[in-house]
Amino acid sequence: MMNSTLQPAEPSQSALDSLAELEASYAGDPVFDAHLGGKMAIAATVSMETKDDLSLAYTPGVARVCTAIAENPAVFETHTWASRTVAVVTDGSAVLGLGNIGPKAAMPVMEGKAVLFKRFANVDAIPICLDTTDVDEIIETVVRLAPSFGGINLEDIAAPRCFEIEKALQERLDIPVFHDDQHGTAIVTLAALWNACRVTGRDFASLRATISGAGAAGVAIANILLDAGIGDVVLVDSRGVLHTSRTDLNPVKAELAARTNTTGITGSIVEALAGGDVLIGVSGGQIPTEAVAGMAPGGFIFAMANPTPEVAPDVAAQYAAVVATGRSDFPNQINNVLAFPAVFKGTFDAGAKQITPAMKLAAAKALADVATDELDAQHILPSALDPRVVPIVSAAVAAAASDGTASV
Amino acid sequence: MMNSTLQPAEPSQSALDSLAELEASYAGDPVFDAHLGGKMAIAATVSMETKDDLSLAYTPGVARVCTAIAENPAVFETHTWASRTVAVVTDGSAVLGLGNIGPKAAMPVMEGKAVLFKRFANVDAIPICLDTTDVDEIIETVVRLAPSFGGINLEDIAAPRCFEIEKALQERLDIPVFHDDQHGTAIVTLAALWNACRVTGRDFASLRATISGAGAAGVAIANILLDAGIGDVVLVDSRGVLHTSRTDLNPVKAELAARTNTTGITGSIVEALAGGDVLIGVSGGQIPTEAVAGMAPGGFIFAMANPTPEVAPDVAAQYAAVVATGRSDFPNQINNVLAFPAVFKGTFDAGAKQITPAMKLAAAKALADVATDELDAQHILPSALDPRVVPIVSAAVAAAASDGTASV
Repeated sequence: MMNSTLQPAEPSQSALDSLAELEASYAGDPVFDAHLGGKMAIAATVSMETKDDLSLAYTPGVARVCTAIAENPAVFETHTWASRTVAVVTDGSAVLGLGNIGPKAAMPVMEGKAVLFKRFANVDAIPICLDTTDVDEIIETVVRLAPSFGGINLEDIAAPRCFEIEKALQERLDIPVFHDDQHGTAIVTLAALWNACRVTGRDFASLRATISGAGAAGVAIANILLDAGIGDVVLVDSRGVLHTSRTDLNPVKAELAARTNTTGITGSIVEALAGGDVLIGVSGGQIPTEAVAGMAPGGFIFAMANPTPEVAPDVAAQYAAVVATGRSDFPNQINNVLAFPAVFKGTFDAGAKQITPAMKLAAAKALADVATDELDAQHILPSALDPRVVPIVSAAVAAAASDGTASV
Repeated sequence: MMNSTLQPAEPSQSALDSLAELEASYAGDPVFDAHLGGKMAIAATVSMETKDDLSLAYTPGVARVCTAIAENPAVFETHTWASRTVAVVTDGSAVLGLGNIGPKAAMPVMEGKAVLFKRFANVDAIPICLDTTDVDEIIETVVRLAPSFGGINLEDIAAPRCFEIEKALQERLDIPVFHDDQHGTAIVTLAALWNACRVTGRDFASLRATISGAGAAGVAIANILLDAGIGDVVLVDSRGVLHTSRTDLNPVKAELAARTNTTGITGSIVEALAGGDVLIGVSGGQIPTEAVAGMAPGGFIFAMANPTPEVAPDVAAQYAAVVATGRSDFPNQINNVLAFPAVFKGTFDAGAKQITPAMKLAAAKALADVATDELDAQHILPSALDPRVVPIVSAAVAAAASDGTASV
């Protein structure tokens, strides 16, 4: 049985017939080969080989466990898979750089995410792709699903509705809710920035960072940098620098404008970068070289757009002491997988019901510390495959959850 | 990695602390031991060990599969796990014989069901326990979830709302929707009844069957027996025999009253059984011996209530030629696991979008045929562990789906 549970389910004949028609384009393509039949399966962790097995794990035995949960919810935590299982929830509206491709086309990403949870942190996760992009419908659907899961990882939901959805779910649910495009990115970015300071001897508290892009990632990065005590942050959206005189800002941006850009910069990315120390690109657009050239010397450029960084790494290296991207084929990849598996594992280990700012800061600090033994300008982060990451980061998250600053 | 994926996730420390308090009641209890940490886990079916693995199965490679699905939905069928994954959906309102215990307390049953899908048919399944018992909310929630799955198995949802929910979902979704408490039970009951006829030489078309209980199972059994050409069916609910003069019937019962009880029986279970050939108990109540004693000789009693059959098997044997129950410790267990894994496997294999009456009849016929080589009054059904069941029944379901009577 154990062998059979590791097989992906076989595609149906009709599906295979359809596939045959697609063969000209996909056959032998290693990407499509890797996805054939999907990337994940269910495995039983109990034996179901004998009548006695069935009596214990299913009827009649199971009725006693159900009754025990009805009488004492703590038994749900210990005697179901659900209490440590994450729903990876999307509406398919902002998938990778592909935009609003819908729930079915989003599935391969969500499956991949679920497999990464399992691979890196032994956390079970299930892809849930919703057939609605309405804020209220997404919220009420996830609320109704919530008893089936121990945590909610929101994924690839477009800004600004992602902010409202996450906030409402955090208020209504007693399980952790985490929008990875925001907080996973923010945690890894902060860790990278701390280590860039370590490498160069710069003082984090005196840095001014410009964030190009004020969507999910940009907003969350701004928040975590401020929580961590950075000198100042200037955000730039498609209409220019965020400042308090702008009247076209959504509530999330308006709130951030009031807490950032303390020197009142106005204008475009050129004005935002002039004399600045850090450029963090999470916009997907291109940033002109003349804008980058205006940065103060010895700074950092994290150009995280995929597949094309906002500033080409070789150009960035002419104007910054440390360069990072979102790509695995350049040094210093800023990759969410360094955060989300460990964040949920640590949260579950602590029995925490939310993922607080303190827990996110603890994750970033631990992640930065993992990289210290081979730290240089080309290695400000550990590899995604470094086996030390999850144990160390998850322990830090759990400790922060338990130290009284987190609500448990 | 493959070994680690088969481990259940570890319970958190706080959960273990709670467990410690429960130890006096549960420790060493084999049922609770079997459920510790849950009964299922996720397994990756792709390698995630190297940077190249990640590039193929996750970014950047995955974007090409997403794009392919957006352009051609057939790729969803072949290149995601979702297209052959079943959501086992409950509202926790009618769990086993425990009643409305809520979604969290229902989870151990739904996990068990998911594991049975995997164990018997290599069909992946996920437990989804909903925090609502409102008909419209359940329907709209499942509609929104549907892109994540290839089929919906409704489970332990109370009658009569289970009928409305199933019908609405079948109309609105393009994936198979199957309420197992109805149709799984009905398929296995019909198979058992056919084989009881084989054993005794009785003519199925001349039988009059009394069904005690007009909930989910009773209604579906009545329908499949009529579809199969039985002589007559008489249903009995808590207020007595269903007949067309009753004014207290819900729409589902009223519709059935018009197609059953052709001789116009009125009264109680006593009148319903008098001179009848078959008693099918799906009520959970007790049926008095004097009522059973009124049956025609040489008939069949299927007393399926768990854990206490409506008629004790030794009493039933005095009045019937073939006796069956829902329990594994008596002969002739009528167990849904003989049907649902094979029904979904066959449906998926055929690429069918619904599970039609013809497919259900084909499942029952194939299941009955599996038992023929050791058929006697104590063995009218194969064992739940008989490895022939799923291949034979699923092939019959797939063939019925493809023969033009089913919409594919």
